[in-house]
Amino acid sequence: MQPVNHQFRLAARPVGMPKAEDWQFIETPVGEPGDGEVLVKVLYISLDPAMRGWMNDAKSYIKPVGIGEVMRAGAVGRVLASRHPKFAAGDHVVGSLGVQEYAIADGKGLTRVDPRLAPLPVYLSTLGMPGMTAYFGLLDVGKPQPGNTVVVSGAAGAVGTVVGQIAKIKGCRVVGIAGGKDKCDWVRNDLGFDAAIDYKADDVKKALGQHCPSGIDVYFDNVGGDILDAALARLARGARVVICGAISQYNNTTPVRGPANYLSLLVNRASMTGMVVFDYAERYAEAAREMAGWMASGKLKSREDIVSGLARFPDALLMLFRGENTGKLVLKVADE
Amino acid sequence: MQPVNHQFRLAARPVGMPKAEDWQFIETPVGEPGDGEVLVKVLYISLDPAMRGWMNDAKSYIKPVGIGEVMRAGAVGRVLASRHPKFAAGDHVVGSLGVQEYAIADGKGLTRVDPRLAPLPVYLSTLGMPGMTAYFGLLDVGKPQPGNTVVVSGAAGAVGTVVGQIAKIKGCRVVGIAGGKDKCDWVRNDLGFDAAIDYKADDVKKALGQHCPSGIDVYFDNVGGDILDAALARLARGARVVICGAISQYNNTTPVRGPANYLSLLVNRASMTGMVVFDYAERYAEAAREMAGWMASGKLKSREDIVSGLARFPDALLMLFRGENTGKLVLKVADE
Repeated sequence: MQPVNHQFRLAARPVGMPKAEDWQFIETPVGEPGDGEVLVKVLYISLDPAMRGWMNDAKSYIKPVGIGEVMRAGAVGRVLASRHPKFAAGDHVVGSLGVQEYAIADGKGLTRVDPRLAPLPVYLSTLGMPGMTAYFGLLDVGKPQPGNTVVVSGAAGAVGTVVGQIAKIKGCRVVGIAGGKDKCDWVRNDLGFDAAIDYKADDVKKALGQHCPSGIDVYFDNVGGDILDAALARLARGARVVICGAISQYNNTTPVRGPANYLSLLVNRASMTGMVVFDYAERYAEAAREMAGWMASGKLKSREDIVSGLARFPDALLMLFRGENTGKLVLKVADE
Repeated sequence: MQPVNHQFRLAARPVGMPKAEDWQFIETPVGEPGDGEVLVKVLYISLDPAMRGWMNDAKSYIKPVGIGEVMRAGAVGRVLASRHPKFAAGDHVVGSLGVQEYAIADGKGLTRVDPRLAPLPVYLSTLGMPGMTAYFGLLDVGKPQPGNTVVVSGAAGAVGTVVGQIAKIKGCRVVGIAGGKDKCDWVRNDLGFDAAIDYKADDVKKALGQHCPSGIDVYFDNVGGDILDAALARLARGARVVICGAISQYNNTTPVRGPANYLSLLVNRASMTGMVVFDYAERYAEAAREMAGWMASGKLKSREDIVSGLARFPDALLMLFRGENTGKLVLKVADE
């Protein structure tokens, strides 16, 4: 008996927050891998803010998901059958497998991972795209120096937690901005941030003044909007602003709000630079080795927030935009 | 008989465009230079968009002009009397002499200039702050490579004309954005820009698409607002945006409008960096030598737009914000 594959396909381009009607939940035969292909059973799916951008019909760093196509997503799975020379049944792999239970992949961008070295969800988290984004965005673009003040927004999210911890490893003073007391307590007490600002309760601009008395040397932005503006107002001379994302703007039905305080870049001879993690693909292995070392020595903690059941995908995705996850949000699709 | 000095002092902090009542026109004795000081007869005063910022009571790269103080301005003059070892009566000097007929200066930031090498107004123009701003902003921050497409706004202004011409010298394709057919014709026909966009008549975003088919590699921004947004929408991968000024925003009575398209920095892995010319003071002489050489060989043209009469200062300053000057706007105070 042929097993059945369930998939979420993009049914319509969302306006604002994605709604249930923007998805099509499909039942389809699993199919057989062709020559050079592998059949993968998907175990964990990565839920990322960037996915919202892929749903828009706009020129970006990657082509949009087409209407009727399986929603793009990073995922970890187990190879069930392989006609590809580099993979064998039983291998665990990570790659862009889509929001579905079974994927047939041609091996491009597929990487073998070892569940004995780290739990599988960590390969979507600190040892996956969010970790790579944090590593290269902070170190290559932000260029933190020992003693610098580093501020990160989305501090309790998948990228922010890693940014803050690496900045601590590099000898910086780290201030995180997150939503709610629990997240703030966590990044301060468990991750070792020097301070945390609760944007839902605090006056962010004032709090940044308090916690960054000599200004912000590196600001790593995941959120955009008011928080980006507050950070710009507090830049130190020569500051580096890393533009990694703008989650506060992704579901706008009105145009993106630009940072009104951008002339602070002039006053402070500062720079604001965008980054896309895919550019660093050749160096992922190097970063993963270094981060695995930090994890092994307890300097870098990885936390995953796991929701179970493929059917919960549409709502689980919205948790990101409602700020309901702490650490990396992962959708569990099947038992290992 | 003691000669009389006329001065413009800041009477009030302007809201929006500076009005006549924001200035105090004062008659005061010229005074005598003390020990280590020089008395300078002011000949030409530099009118710069940045002066509007100095009138605001806001933290910036330089302290605001105080209420009741002589308005700060760069100027060229002739030394009438000197008790400073480095200057003698008859020397021509450039420095921050203020909006007045006579200045007593302590020699700090005062530089001797030679009227046989270049007409005196050029020391406020291509061989002065605007030229230095263009030179270092373009070369040090914009880092143009041969074959790059360089776009400059305020293209017919003091800084823009020099940016565009240096970019041509460096082998770039140059597109200027200016207001009106005359300015556009001038930068194209006389300064050798490859194309010019009239922001008053053209759809800037569309025209940028036309004139920059492979995107903008360097965007040198003097204006902010809609034009900055249009340029951001057309960035090439790895583009450098130089933030030199934002003349469209200086007289706002509402908050500065941030660039809504700033996420183009992310998509295109681009950077936006602020610059302040004063940081390059140690290299002014080097830049002046190189630019004087380009001028001598006809590769770099300097144009000054001269208005005569100190009393016309308040209105002459507004010409900048109404876009009425072509080339560097200079106020002539006295005959050489």
